[in-house]
Amino acid sequence: MFITESFLLQTKTAQRLYDKYAKDMPIIDYHCHINPREIAEDKRFENITQVWLYGDHYKWRLMRSNGVPEEEITGNADDYTKFLRFAEMLPKAIGNPMYHWCHLELKRYFGYDGVLNADTAKTVWEICNKKLAEPSMSVRNIIKQSNVKMVGTTDDPVDTLEWHKAIAEDDSIDVVVLPSFRPDKAVNIDKPGFAEYIGKLGEAAQIEIRSVDDVKAALSKRLDYFCEMGCRATDHGLDYVVYEPATDEEVEKIFQKVMGGGEISQLEADKYKTAIMLHLGREIARHGIVMQLHYGAQRNTNTKMFNLLGPDSGFDCISTKDCGAAITRFLNALEMDNALPKTIIYSLNPNDNELIDTILGCFQGTEAAGKIQHGSAWWFSDTKTGMEAQMTSLANLSLLGNFIGMLTDSRSFLSYSRHEYFRRILCNLIGNWVENGEYPDDEQALGKIIQDICYYNAEKYFGLG
Amino acid sequence: MFITESFLLQTKTAQRLYDKYAKDMPIIDYHCHINPREIAEDKRFENITQVWLYGDHYKWRLMRSNGVPEEEITGNADDYTKFLRFAEMLPKAIGNPMYHWCHLELKRYFGYDGVLNADTAKTVWEICNKKLAEPSMSVRNIIKQSNVKMVGTTDDPVDTLEWHKAIAEDDSIDVVVLPSFRPDKAVNIDKPGFAEYIGKLGEAAQIEIRSVDDVKAALSKRLDYFCEMGCRATDHGLDYVVYEPATDEEVEKIFQKVMGGGEISQLEADKYKTAIMLHLGREIARHGIVMQLHYGAQRNTNTKMFNLLGPDSGFDCISTKDCGAAITRFLNALEMDNALPKTIIYSLNPNDNELIDTILGCFQGTEAAGKIQHGSAWWFSDTKTGMEAQMTSLANLSLLGNFIGMLTDSRSFLSYSRHEYFRRILCNLIGNWVENGEYPDDEQALGKIIQDICYYNAEKYFGLG
Amino acid sequence: MFITESFLLQTKTAQRLYDKYAKDMPIIDYHCHINPREIAEDKRFENITQVWLYGDHYKWRLMRSNGVPEEEITGNADDYTKFLRFAEMLPKAIGNPMYHWCHLELKRYFGYDGVLNADTAKTVWEICNKKLAEPSMSVRNIIKQSNVKMVGTTDDPVDTLEWHKAIAEDDSIDVVVLPSFRPDKAVNIDKPGFAEYIGKLGEAAQIEIRSVDDVKAALSKRLDYFCEMGCRATDHGLDYVVYEPATDEEVEKIFQKVMGGGEISQLEADKYKTAIMLHLGREIARHGIVMQLHYGAQRNTNTKMFNLLGPDSGFDCISTKDCGAAITRFLNALEMDNALPKTIIYSLNPNDNELIDTILGCFQGTEAAGKIQHGSAWWFSDTKTGMEAQMTSLANLSLLGNFIGMLTDSRSFLSYSRHEYFRRILCNLIGNWVENGEYPDDEQALGKIIQDICYYNAEKYFGLG
Repeated sequence: MFITESFLLQTKTAQRLYDKYAKDMPIIDYHCHINPREIAEDKRFENITQVWLYGDHYKWRLMRSNGVPEEEITGNADDYTKFLRFAEMLPKAIGNPMYHWCHLELKRYFGYDGVLNADTAKTVWEICNKKLAEPSMSVRNIIKQSNVKMVGTTDDPVDTLEWHKAIAEDDSIDVVVLPSFRPDKAVNIDKPGFAEYIGKLGEAAQIEIRSVDDVKAALSKRLDYFCEMGCRATDHGLDYVVYEPATDEEVEKIFQKVMGGGEISQLEADKYKTAIMLHLGREIARHGIVMQLHYGAQRNTNTKMFNLLGPDSGFDCISTKDCGAAITRFLNALEMDNALPKTIIYSLNPNDNELIDTILGCFQGTEAAGKIQHGSAWWFSDTKTGMEAQMTSLANLSLLGNFIGMLTDSRSFLSYSRHEYFRRILCNLIGNWVENGEYPDDEQALGKIIQDICYYNAEKYFGLG
Repeated sequence: MFITESFLLQTKTAQRLYDKYAKDMPIIDYHCHINPREIAEDKRFENITQVWLYGDHYKWRLMRSNGVPEEEITGNADDYTKFLRFAEMLPKAIGNPMYHWCHLELKRYFGYDGVLNADTAKTVWEICNKKLAEPSMSVRNIIKQSNVKMVGTTDDPVDTLEWHKAIAEDDSIDVVVLPSFRPDKAVNIDKPGFAEYIGKLGEAAQIEIRSVDDVKAALSKRLDYFCEMGCRATDHGLDYVVYEPATDEEVEKIFQKVMGGGEISQLEADKYKTAIMLHLGREIARHGIVMQLHYGAQRNTNTKMFNLLGPDSGFDCISTKDCGAAITRFLNALEMDNALPKTIIYSLNPNDNELIDTILGCFQGTEAAGKIQHGSAWWFSDTKTGMEAQMTSLANLSLLGNFIGMLTDSRSFLSYSRHEYFRRILCNLIGNWVENGEYPDDEQALGKIIQDICYYNAEKYFGLG
Repeated sequence: MFITESFLLQTKTAQRLYDKYAKDMPIIDYHCHINPREIAEDKRFENITQVWLYGDHYKWRLMRSNGVPEEEITGNADDYTKFLRFAEMLPKAIGNPMYHWCHLELKRYFGYDGVLNADTAKTVWEICNKKLAEPSMSVRNIIKQSNVKMVGTTDDPVDTLEWHKAIAEDDSIDVVVLPSFRPDKAVNIDKPGFAEYIGKLGEAAQIEIRSVDDVKAALSKRLDYFCEMGCRATDHGLDYVVYEPATDEEVEKIFQKVMGGGEISQLEADKYKTAIMLHLGREIARHGIVMQLHYGAQRNTNTKMFNLLGPDSGFDCISTKDCGAAITRFLNALEMDNALPKTIIYSLNPNDNELIDTILGCFQGTEAAGKIQHGSAWWFSDTKTGMEAQMTSLANLSLLGNFIGMLTDSRSFLSYSRHEYFRRILCNLIGNWVENGEYPDDEQALGKIIQDICYYNAEKYFGLG
């Protein structure tokens, strides 16, 4: 048996803390990429390849790293072949979170205790597929058995949110599913399709967009609608954080140039983006909701594969571009207007941990304990060592006790076991500190810290109480 | 009891090394920000809030991170309320050095063994204030009981050093208090108040400053005076290290522009700064004293709070601007003139550890074993993990045995227990290496390394023997 | 005894894995800087200073860091004095890999069990020199007793490879010695001596070089010759990775300017370099061999010492220049041409571990499991913690099981014990994971991973089967 009761819990204190304070806390998955329609329709899966390999670029990357041809990853090979190729690769993923994620999912959702490799692939395939045929493995039932109280999806401003509405109106669904506002397409003036998107945004907002002010008005109107629908957060995917202030006239000219089919420089793009982001920041503050900044990615680095598979197919990597000054200037500009919202900063570059954690301390406020947050270790940093580094840095430089904790950022309904993974790592980290004499063995203080990070801090921060 | 004899000492070797070689070594606190007047006048404190919360922006930041209103941090709230807010926050600071610093100070100076939190705040408040009323808690007596042999203050070139003189002439004071020369205001041509400061510098040096050469002459004259007064080191706070060489004419033009009330570009500012820093480097070398370079800070990032509270009030963060090439070029320029002084490099960005440690090896000399030093983990890096990272990198890439060790960089007289904190971490690190078989259990070699790093290396390096 | 059987092996699992799967695997030292002539001529050494201190800038740097005068490092002092100065310094190198390397070499090659310091220097000197007089300590016999199957040297395109030929034709030599193609001098248009070198390259290739196309043709021809001689890899030492695409005409103009004695800008230099590197990448792919990119160094930072001792004498340090975007664009440009060779990326900046490991996943292919590799911790990172960080990051973000493992990068024939050092660290890392429950205690899977990383992956990757 690989996943035991004490998995990742190296000390008795860690085990005690996990058992008593972490294990049974409900889950608030405040940022993920699942499709609300699949909840509304209570989707079912035929086989484990559909769940695991149809949409998970983490898995695709590892298979490619093993020399597997694309045909057998995202191509036309049959589902079992794809699963087998994945299983053959898995033992080489020693030290990789994928090894842990898969075995946690196999244990928690499929009751499989053993390891997955080339030899066991057939057995595991059959166990999983049999289980998936049971009603307990519908999307809603997976969510239910995972003890999930709230799911925060990620939605475009033009989205009608019809599935969120359907879920909210369906009394048989316990979990709260709230939209998040992700206006990247209205910000990314330098990406193909911008002008076309602005058209759609105008339609969604019932505003004919002819100027930057119209863009702002349309975004505000859609954000109002999202907030009516329960939206608690926005999300901004930035290759790098921009802060290039410019006059309204300048920004207008840049916008008109692009809408007229012209070319702009990177600096011009950054000026437009800055203007829109500042507007959005103010609006987010006005609504009292949370601004999430995700930065530090180089996206679609492999043009050949982008042409074949499009975005989000596993060809992104870390950006090491220095954003230190831009972040502080952007936050400061909002703060000077008394319009800095609650903010969560996530960098894909793990070297930014300390940068971010020292920035937090410069912009806190009384709106919340931990108003400015360092987001849980994100994407490529979402590993045992990555989470330990993020929490250690946060503890060193801020108040770990105010951390709002884990989110899955996932497209898969089986990913809720990543909250278990996080909680085990959290309890282990704190358990080590206690047993090493770095924090008193004070049950009350420790229990509160664990429960707060697992649940209550996020509940308060997002106003879900 | 939280702070036990074995606090942070995980192995028997670590405990033995700490007890036999570290614990009783005197302290050379070669870089701090205490006010020498308070030593001369043997200042007393009325309550723990005065000591802990009147001037410590580390504590303010943590309170702000807990949502405490400014009124109850730096504002008009009463002292006990401030202390209570701090105590309420403290348990959340798990993993933060503040948790350790406070409990070390409570134990060593106030004899309080327990933990500080909301429940114990009133008790601790009373214990501390009673103790502070005792004569043993005057500034001089705190220094004495802390076994401090030397204190290096941080002083502006225009300072008269009258309090240093008073202390030197007072036979009842055992500790040696020496000034350090910190000419930042003469370097920072891009900061407000530069022209006015140049006027003051001229007065202090009795030179009418009309040119860059006059600035240099005035700085040299003041440095001569500081050295007469026992100065062993200069200190330079640089947002980032500059190296933009320019002709004398160019630099003169830049200086005249600013003195005439004109605006200059960042590049122009950097050219002036480079010229002054090179001049200072040569002068420091001539005196045979030590140049300390502190770089990597974004200062005063929050304009709203800067306008309320001014500088050094807890709104600074790490700068991630790349200084690698500027550092090597600056040191090389001095080395080419045979005018590179003993130098200590400190970066606020912990990612620079390895950069700095590989730079050291490029510019060593016979003036001292370890002529070019990597300063002890500074400010935001002054944490258990930060010190371990700095020392591990230094050991990997240079000679840990030549490290001049700890300094408090503090404004508080209770901070000497941070030397204990450092020494425990040092002995623990080395103890782990020994017990893990990475270094022989050779008492003589280990004892010498520990004593050298705790005391003798600094004594030799600063010529205090 | 310092170097025991369990040196660096903290757990029983680590010891078992090392003994059963790592210890006896042969060595493929696919990248080093030894002189093949010394193998062909079966060189002998008179004393340990000749082996250790005549050419090892790692050792020189540590001696300089101890204040030793250059006379006693690279100067005219006698060999014993140099050795004594080194021995006096060594105990201070606690935590430095040099401490481990030296004691491993003393144990494995000289049978000396004790420590080296000022007291034992004379004894060790005599033991070593006596041993060096034995025939078993000729270069060929050192290689033989080290169980080395293949050595990859580093050679200039103009090299005749006569010594490789001599070795290949000598039946008494078992080890395979293959050249690597290192065309840095043809790339570095901004370094002194470029035009002169181009002349030599033309001669070697029997092409009169008048244009960039001629440079390309000459390099191609020499690469063809190298491949005929068994070359399996190229190597590129880049201060930073460049990607500045330009038209052929532009590049030609830049080349002509330099050949005509003119000056070019850094951007122009980078355009020429990009063009040549892209050409080389395509040619490397055509041959199906491996491209090694070593980047991230500031070289010859100390002009005074460069003028005295020339390059590669211990005055280099890390470059922190951000190369993230240049690397992905360079690889992408080759990939778009279906001409991306097997590639190994090494950065001198340990902060780049995660950057590189996420880049790997964007450019994999079916030519090999692990087509794009993250090279073993290089130069200043070639330490216990550096290797652990490189392997942990690689495991987190890619497939550690496909890692091609260690190389010495060394000029010394005693450095093969660094493979032992690496293998112990590898087994210790994996042993810790297993005992901590992070990977199953599955003997078959673990044995395969260890053996693959120690030997088989490199054998396959370089086509040495």
